[in-house]
Amino acid sequence: MADGFLIGLDFGSETARGVLVDVRSGAVVAAHTHPYRHGILSSALPDGTALPPGWALQDADDYEEAAAAILGALGRGRQVRGIGLGFTASSPLPTTAEGTPLSRLHPGTPHAYVKLWKHAAAQEQADRIGAGAGHLLADVGGRLSSNSLLAKAAELAEGAPALWAEAARFVEAADWLVWRLIGVESRSAAFAAYKGCWREGAGYPADLVPGLGGKLGPVRAVGAAAGALTPAWRERTGLVGEAAVAVPVIDSHMAVPAAGAVEAGTLVAALGTSAVYLLLDGVGVPLPQGIEGRAFGGVVPGFWCHEAGQAAFGDVLGWFVRAFPRGANVEASFAAYEAKAAALPPGGSGVVALDWWNGNRVPHGDARLSGLFAGLTLRTTGADLYRALVESLCFGARAILDRFVAGGVPVERVVMTSGLSLASPLLMQTMADVLGRAIAVPRMPQLTAVGGAIHAAVASGAAADYPEAARRFGARDVLTYRPDPAARDRIETLYRAYRALGEADATRDALLALHAAPA
Amino acid sequence: MADGFLIGLDFGSETARGVLVDVRSGAVVAAHTHPYRHGILSSALPDGTALPPGWALQDADDYEEAAAAILGALGRGRQVRGIGLGFTASSPLPTTAEGTPLSRLHPGTPHAYVKLWKHAAAQEQADRIGAGAGHLLADVGGRLSSNSLLAKAAELAEGAPALWAEAARFVEAADWLVWRLIGVESRSAAFAAYKGCWREGAGYPADLVPGLGGKLGPVRAVGAAAGALTPAWRERTGLVGEAAVAVPVIDSHMAVPAAGAVEAGTLVAALGTSAVYLLLDGVGVPLPQGIEGRAFGGVVPGFWCHEAGQAAFGDVLGWFVRAFPRGANVEASFAAYEAKAAALPPGGSGVVALDWWNGNRVPHGDARLSGLFAGLTLRTTGADLYRALVESLCFGARAILDRFVAGGVPVERVVMTSGLSLASPLLMQTMADVLGRAIAVPRMPQLTAVGGAIHAAVASGAAADYPEAARRFGARDVLTYRPDPAARDRIETLYRAYRALGEADATRDALLALHAAPA
Repeated sequence: MADGFLIGLDFGSETARGVLVDVRSGAVVAAHTHPYRHGILSSALPDGTALPPGWALQDADDYEEAAAAILGALGRGRQVRGIGLGFTASSPLPTTAEGTPLSRLHPGTPHAYVKLWKHAAAQEQADRIGAGAGHLLADVGGRLSSNSLLAKAAELAEGAPALWAEAARFVEAADWLVWRLIGVESRSAAFAAYKGCWREGAGYPADLVPGLGGKLGPVRAVGAAAGALTPAWRERTGLVGEAAVAVPVIDSHMAVPAAGAVEAGTLVAALGTSAVYLLLDGVGVPLPQGIEGRAFGGVVPGFWCHEAGQAAFGDVLGWFVRAFPRGANVEASFAAYEAKAAALPPGGSGVVALDWWNGNRVPHGDARLSGLFAGLTLRTTGADLYRALVESLCFGARAILDRFVAGGVPVERVVMTSGLSLASPLLMQTMADVLGRAIAVPRMPQLTAVGGAIHAAVASGAAADYPEAARRFGARDVLTYRPDPAARDRIETLYRAYRALGEADATRDALLALHAAPA
Repeated sequence: MADGFLIGLDFGSETARGVLVDVRSGAVVAAHTHPYRHGILSSALPDGTALPPGWALQDADDYEEAAAAILGALGRGRQVRGIGLGFTASSPLPTTAEGTPLSRLHPGTPHAYVKLWKHAAAQEQADRIGAGAGHLLADVGGRLSSNSLLAKAAELAEGAPALWAEAARFVEAADWLVWRLIGVESRSAAFAAYKGCWREGAGYPADLVPGLGGKLGPVRAVGAAAGALTPAWRERTGLVGEAAVAVPVIDSHMAVPAAGAVEAGTLVAALGTSAVYLLLDGVGVPLPQGIEGRAFGGVVPGFWCHEAGQAAFGDVLGWFVRAFPRGANVEASFAAYEAKAAALPPGGSGVVALDWWNGNRVPHGDARLSGLFAGLTLRTTGADLYRALVESLCFGARAILDRFVAGGVPVERVVMTSGLSLASPLLMQTMADVLGRAIAVPRMPQLTAVGGAIHAAVASGAAADYPEAARRFGARDVLTYRPDPAARDRIETLYRAYRALGEADATRDALLALHAAPA
């Protein structure tokens, strides 16, 4: 095998993380994290301009700064053969024809910035566009998400018509960064398909947003190089050699090959502040009822990949340990609740929660919904509630898995990734108990970024294909949790109560009424 | 007016409290509290014999000890003209023909003790007896409560047949104590009607429990003397004169005349660990749908009195401030949550609770139900939850008041009593906002025991009737809370959500499933 290195980059919501992988040994030999200079702009722009509630913007220049810092820290003086990256989505921005972000030209104009994936001000546009486009939405469950590229394009076109007219390009942040790195515009099929309703052959349904068609660009399939790092970037970062830059993918999707899921039937969960469940399908089974989306070739070439998620996951536990602290800090509080809850039987004292603290994605797809605790008594403890939250997160996962199975997409194996899956044995054991399946947890802290290195390996030719790249560079050390048969009856009762409450019209009506309550 | 004193006694769950009232001035001149030596026996008898879950017993001798201590402390050397008392109900015990508690003869036998009102092990008997006696249960909503005298008699008869055979008497603790004080057996119509399905003319439906008929006694109407304090008790306590002992009433019912409610149309709430709502009716309106019971002459002579309640009230707030403490102790925690919640708008961040932490009485009458929080988000704070709990308690009160009005029992005025009504201005303002009515809160700390003094005044002839006694001895200093019109729309939305969730089959089914979940 050849010498040299691969770099995987994971552009998250708050920071970008990178890993340096030795091509010969397959080992991660260095890692580097760089927080975005401006973080998430949710209350004001850098110049002080106030933002309405629900807005979440970023400054594209922060991504470039982070990319330069990480590439320099990991690669300076090294032979880097390939760079692969993942990015939040949909996080689009308007640019000039040369790719200059309009936020650089109009720093006081909110619509000129990147609309981060969780920007929540385009629901009205999503509903309106989606209502007229059912025939285009079969692969996203018939609903257009407010975080889609199309909804955000429409929000910009309607909210700032002059800026929209000035925007020569409307581009995903991932594609924009690749454009910076390789010097030519290129759009990834991953973002186009999952976030832009793009389909091979049919293209984007750009007519849904007036003017959008002229602001898009050529789409490239995942699993190849978009181009090579420009001489200017090589000089800026000190990398040696013409690194191939892979077509980017959605950040959480990098976990799939890194977890060894390069064939149909492995459900991969990325359990972060929210959770994403990804399932490769080699046949093309239609989108199961309640599952949120599927696309071909957007995660690993040659496979459909179905996607569904929970809008809040680790965030729910984080909320609880902060709202009702035990101990000196958040870490102590988390450890105290984990220990106490782990000593309780499933269901604690009989509490069940709906894990909808940030709205519900499956089955209702409604951000207005909210969380619920039921079964509270005068004997209920804080540990009971914490345990109920852990269980509700697992019930949410089970509700998704059950829909995959009911829809005819086979699930042979379950792999759960992320820091939380390593930090909470309680959560993982409960997942095994609730799903009734063995859960494999790769012990690899930077697994998502390593997924980027796998894409880099294929794009650069350092590996022949994804199975080889996953074998050489993916996770090998895996913990396995197995279901406890003694927990089964009680878990099943609680899960039925979770499903019944979550699917009852009465529950939804009450939560919507609370959301709409007059101030 | 004549000289001398009245003593009012309030036998609660943990302690007995007494007040000494000056007949001439009408003022409370002394008060004394005596905790029961053995408290509530919920895990074991005094000799160590273990008790099953749900059991709650007391030792009748503790009542006699408390009565002697309080009468001595308040009345020694004083001319006491009358003694009036209230007692928890139904809290019956088996005795010999002479009134010796069987627990004194069989100290290791659980069934020989007083079954305290909240003893929760006679549900099966209540359901079975109630199912065959619908024609007798119109005044208790068609359901027999597990805390009725009849259910507890059946539990004893079935659980300890030899002891049941030995029991010459089966008697309410209140009537037993009066028997001790005056030397002859006497049953109060208050306990007989509310807790024994007794009706004037028809008597007790004693046939429902084999053997019960022979263990009961003569029933006396409320508003008269049951007898006079025996010479032995006068010697033991040092009281001067032949104090009349009034026919006893249920403890919370003493608040009605003490709060000045001696005519139809005043709803009196006694807000303690649980809550009771009492409404005098001069006409005899049939029991409204969902209201729990009514009886004639059991609270104030000449009136029907309707009764409904919440199984947990102050207990719910106490649970929260203990489970999620803020500050050094329970008092600090309560004060911190009160202050923070009072600064929030109604509904806080949009959370609504069902106040069923100890089961639900109205409308479901089901102790297996449990509490619920809905509307939780990542922005929800502890103060939001506390405020939601306060509101849920008020929504529970509103649900009862609305049923009175819908059933045709007029409500002209609302009076709320107890320590909690004085301790939480937030609770009382929220009551005004939620009920949409002015709330009068008597500023009289020992109001319930003062109600006993009012019964003593009438029984002894110190006052001609209840209106006069209430005027002279009842509460005069009253705080008034008025509804805030600005809160109205939001409160109504939240209340509709509370009713909808609470009355949905889906909610009840889920809570029952949680209760029945296998261990």
